[in-house]
Amino acid sequence: MRKVAVILSGCGVFDGAEIQEAVLTLLHIARSGATYQCFAPDIMQMHTLNHITGEEMQPNRNVLVEAARIARGDIKALSELNAADFDAVILPGGFGAAKNLSDFAVKGAAATLQQDLLRACQAFAAEGKPAGYICIAPAMIPLIYAQQPQLTIGNDADTAAAIGALGGEHVNCKVDDIVIDKRHKVVSTPAYMLAQSIVEADTGIAKLVDAVLTLCK
Amino acid sequence: MRKVAVILSGCGVFDGAEIQEAVLTLLHIARSGATYQCFAPDIMQMHTLNHITGEEMQPNRNVLVEAARIARGDIKALSELNAADFDAVILPGGFGAAKNLSDFAVKGAAATLQQDLLRACQAFAAEGKPAGYICIAPAMIPLIYAQQPQLTIGNDADTAAAIGALGGEHVNCKVDDIVIDKRHKVVSTPAYMLAQSIVEADTGIAKLVDAVLTLCK
Repeated sequence: MRKVAVILSGCGVFDGAEIQEAVLTLLHIARSGATYQCFAPDIMQMHTLNHITGEEMQPNRNVLVEAARIARGDIKALSELNAADFDAVILPGGFGAAKNLSDFAVKGAAATLQQDLLRACQAFAAEGKPAGYICIAPAMIPLIYAQQPQLTIGNDADTAAAIGALGGEHVNCKVDDIVIDKRHKVVSTPAYMLAQSIVEADTGIAKLVDAVLTLCK
Repeated sequence: MRKVAVILSGCGVFDGAEIQEAVLTLLHIARSGATYQCFAPDIMQMHTLNHITGEEMQPNRNVLVEAARIARGDIKALSELNAADFDAVILPGGFGAAKNLSDFAVKGAAATLQQDLLRACQAFAAEGKPAGYICIAPAMIPLIYAQQPQLTIGNDADTAAAIGALGGEHVNCKVDDIVIDKRHKVVSTPAYMLAQSIVEADTGIAKLVDAVLTLCK
């Protein structure tokens, strides 16, 4: 039975993991007969936003503690993630991927990765184990895979340019489709970078999970 | 095109709406070709819990503001819900249904409903429009439908007894099945009252959404 590590970045599209993408990822992993374990970094969020008004809320919240809501409490600190224990890793999107797992939302082409995230994802790459990145999370791929990895975040020109500056090769992609870099075993899908409905996001995520599991040795 | 109101009770199984149940509800509504609008009461939660440790967190949080995370910000105050604008209503579970939408978690057989919830759900009942209640949310059904409505929360004997004392007729039900009270047009499913996996919860919720939409005039 395949085991997939799912890395969450909080709980809520504007300051954490996109909740719908995260749940759909878990659904499709489980439907495929694989198991999952959720992880998140034990760090403070970049900020915490009221999802109705967009205003910043105080006090700020912890990424791991909030991500635990999606995982019904069954979650581990990202520092404990050992790639040797899993067959693949998948990262749902949401601004948390660009605010908490990386600083792409602020720094764009000068972005860096949170240290636990970098270590964990590079370990999957080094072991030749497949990975899936959803929504804005693929912007992190060039910082993990050095040799011009192919990826998509949909078709936003400015974001694609920043990804190119980071060393990635951006490929335009429809909302319900995926891009597979077979050399690096990395799969990406636009999801809510383009999706106008949960069904559109679901279609791409289902394909991504299937492709990641198919790439498992 | 059918329009479904979805009433959320926060964001997280232990103090709000069960996130996975909520997302799966939205998914199946949209897949069926219907549309949805999320609502939640603009009130403070009974309390806010760290979902890893179970400890209470300060400050307490607002039900509507937290539920907005699941709905990607597209949510309205429950006080604005007009049953005339919708074909059906569905309530996902999570402790929020028993802590925020009602006080069933604390008062059991002496439970009462939050006033916006009572008004909104009684309006759907009065107009003969179907309703779906998931997980622990069905414990509220006897307080909305007076004439001994049939419902399920799975098979927990103590909870079933409290529901009986409130005036409901509890029917034991398997995790992946539903109970339909055709007279009241009320559907219920156990979901995470019994589910051991997201796939089990999903199967029952898919059936519930289908049954609710089928009951629409």
